[in-house]
Amino acid sequence: MTQFPYSSALIVGAGPGLSASLARQLIARGVKVALAARNVDKLSELAGETGARTFAADAAQPASVAALFDDVASVIGDPEVVVYNASGRLRGPLTELDPGAVEQAIAISAYGGFLVSQQAAKRMIPHGRGAILFTGATASIKGYAQSAAFAMGKFALRGLAQSAARELGPKGIHVAHVIIDGAIRSKTRREEPAKPDSTLDPDAIAQSYIDVLLQHRSAWSQEIEVRPWTESF
Amino acid sequence: MTQFPYSSALIVGAGPGLSASLARQLIARGVKVALAARNVDKLSELAGETGARTFAADAAQPASVAALFDDVASVIGDPEVVVYNASGRLRGPLTELDPGAVEQAIAISAYGGFLVSQQAAKRMIPHGRGAILFTGATASIKGYAQSAAFAMGKFALRGLAQSAARELGPKGIHVAHVIIDGAIRSKTRREEPAKPDSTLDPDAIAQSYIDVLLQHRSAWSQEIEVRPWTESF
Amino acid sequence: MTQFPYSSALIVGAGPGLSASLARQLIARGVKVALAARNVDKLSELAGETGARTFAADAAQPASVAALFDDVASVIGDPEVVVYNASGRLRGPLTELDPGAVEQAIAISAYGGFLVSQQAAKRMIPHGRGAILFTGATASIKGYAQSAAFAMGKFALRGLAQSAARELGPKGIHVAHVIIDGAIRSKTRREEPAKPDSTLDPDAIAQSYIDVLLQHRSAWSQEIEVRPWTESF
Amino acid sequence: MTQFPYSSALIVGAGPGLSASLARQLIARGVKVALAARNVDKLSELAGETGARTFAADAAQPASVAALFDDVASVIGDPEVVVYNASGRLRGPLTELDPGAVEQAIAISAYGGFLVSQQAAKRMIPHGRGAILFTGATASIKGYAQSAAFAMGKFALRGLAQSAARELGPKGIHVAHVIIDGAIRSKTRREEPAKPDSTLDPDAIAQSYIDVLLQHRSAWSQEIEVRPWTESF
Repeated sequence: MTQFPYSSALIVGAGPGLSASLARQLIARGVKVALAARNVDKLSELAGETGARTFAADAAQPASVAALFDDVASVIGDPEVVVYNASGRLRGPLTELDPGAVEQAIAISAYGGFLVSQQAAKRMIPHGRGAILFTGATASIKGYAQSAAFAMGKFALRGLAQSAARELGPKGIHVAHVIIDGAIRSKTRREEPAKPDSTLDPDAIAQSYIDVLLQHRSAWSQEIEVRPWTESF
Repeated sequence: MTQFPYSSALIVGAGPGLSASLARQLIARGVKVALAARNVDKLSELAGETGARTFAADAAQPASVAALFDDVASVIGDPEVVVYNASGRLRGPLTELDPGAVEQAIAISAYGGFLVSQQAAKRMIPHGRGAILFTGATASIKGYAQSAAFAMGKFALRGLAQSAARELGPKGIHVAHVIIDGAIRSKTRREEPAKPDSTLDPDAIAQSYIDVLLQHRSAWSQEIEVRPWTESF
Repeated sequence: MTQFPYSSALIVGAGPGLSASLARQLIARGVKVALAARNVDKLSELAGETGARTFAADAAQPASVAALFDDVASVIGDPEVVVYNASGRLRGPLTELDPGAVEQAIAISAYGGFLVSQQAAKRMIPHGRGAILFTGATASIKGYAQSAAFAMGKFALRGLAQSAARELGPKGIHVAHVIIDGAIRSKTRREEPAKPDSTLDPDAIAQSYIDVLLQHRSAWSQEIEVRPWTESF
Repeated sequence: MTQFPYSSALIVGAGPGLSASLARQLIARGVKVALAARNVDKLSELAGETGARTFAADAAQPASVAALFDDVASVIGDPEVVVYNASGRLRGPLTELDPGAVEQAIAISAYGGFLVSQQAAKRMIPHGRGAILFTGATASIKGYAQSAAFAMGKFALRGLAQSAARELGPKGIHVAHVIIDGAIRSKTRREEPAKPDSTLDPDAIAQSYIDVLLQHRSAWSQEIEVRPWTESF
């Protein structure tokens, strides 16, 4: 196995799907992993199983995010990899969406991404290296009917990712945006999809994150998309 | 001159540039025009000159936007055309941006667009017609270094515009997003640009808004971009 | 009616739909119009009705295109507007497409566009003005299954349009690409679509071409798309 | 090292840069590799060094491509991986490009990609598996001035890749398009770039091809881009 170029990672918006797969793969490569979520209770099983450390934080609150990075630094050191995986989904007709819920959805999907990447950049720039990965969705590039709030947050996150990549790339920090175009398979629900592998296996997605982290700086990806073989697009 | 299909318009985020040009061209076609801004003082000259009505409103506050639409309705009727022209610009290195200022920039560029289009949709859907136009920028499709906050807001607004178009188009409401790719000429500053017409004449931009409003529903544009002949892109 | 800025136009790939509508609207504005097609017989009715001049030409043959421009120049002068409207549609599974037919489809959709715009540029550059419009389709931005050949041609034409715009814009020549996202209504077939205006009225499309031609050089569109209000996208 | 899912590969448009790196990495994973080029002399050193087999073929000639697949099949079996890496670069002002050279550039960049992927699909569909990779460039998504012919070919190839992906993906064949956004480092020229790793290392690009080939079908990438950390975009 290739020597992994990073030794510590923080995953924000951690849950039992993609974040869990990613944590496992990073830990298997010797990376110390911190998981952050608003509710850390749901992370306890994963933490117990893998040895990942868990941290409670509200990604949409500047003080909470700053405290998170301080806490993580004191436990596993400044994270060399930061993954922003939180998002606020909200569906419904444009006329019926609750304004406060829309504001909150944008805050979780995009503003939290800004806060987290700002703290990450502050800690990575002095070292001249690091990686920041943002998790996108189909809604990052296509605004669907009945999905204005989710599209707003995911479009905004993509704009942030591009801006951060252009700004931080030449400083040695790899910024990438991964568009997950399809439904992620639930590891807990046991039903088979109608067609095999027609939902995204979180382990398979995590593999692509690892691939991106292993890229040489002469050939970095800024954006990749992944979707099931059966997905129409 | 073609019969204009709408009789009332509300321009939110009105100022002396594009909004003024658009107000004049709409009024010249017999449209009653309402202008809304946080500070209406700057609109008084335009209002005096054109007969447009002015309204104070904070586009990022749900109650203020709802009140705005009520006020406008009582003065010129429900607006058949709504233009969202407000945006929050903010420049600086990712690490130095003030989180509160970023939150505010996103609120003005994008969340205000949501609030305004939601109120517009509520009033237009019962009539089965109307038009909602969003003003975009180069930053709507490209996130530049040192411009994360502006990109986030403008990307989000584009996601909203797409979602609203897909949702409201089949209800008879024309939703369009105009990407203004270049600097808008200031009517007050008198210096000539280095090359003639190398900045966007607000009257010329406004003409394209009028063109879009005049489109037949069998051939609507959802997105157009305009830029000076000399602009690299 | 605004003074039209051009006095002569050549439409290549002329037929009874969009090209006919565009010819009529240009002639109504005092523009001398030349129509070119491989088979001019189908243009005789349109020519008789409108006074447009017709020319036989194979857009995919360099010598034929050069001769066409010479012929047009001798009859209506060098065309100040050139519209490329020819395309080679070809459907079928990738494995069953005839290679020769694919080559021909690309030649008509894209290579002909190159030949025509090259001749147009040669004649427009000395005057420092002119307009070249390319007609795109949904396939210009999305490659569908069973439609490889059409996508190849239309993608290529869009690449040409971008390159020509970047190269010729600063020389005063307006280059634009119009994506027609939906089926164009047949004027000859009389059936009504299931939903009114759910197919593109060629007169409505032509209006957008006219709008683009009327744009001031400080705010040119390089790409617009048009689709029916009912079209999913 | 992960078990590699394919046992044979054909690289078309093979030369001493990316194709050589890719051939070496595939062979290191136990894959039998065929290299095809119009002029195989330039491949002899690579073949001698790696054990790859070489084949002369003109990718833009249907009969030559069909014969190539027959020849390859007889030597290493039907290729389970096919990479299309040929392209026709041509620069110059639109008005000065030689039409025959433009036609040839499009034929090499795009039509050859069609011919090769058609033969690949015919052989892969019966097995319900395989991978077809297309090599793109910055010109695949942006048409630059003075580069019309290259943009036409590369845009067309991207349209083909999308169409093939939508058509062949559900048949078990992974079709991907890799946008190489920057200059590839020459292994033979020994000068250092101004900034380290500011040109793409062909080994690093090849690694991303390998990553794509290793993706699980529940999370395939259809398009990725790679560029140096220092590249503006």
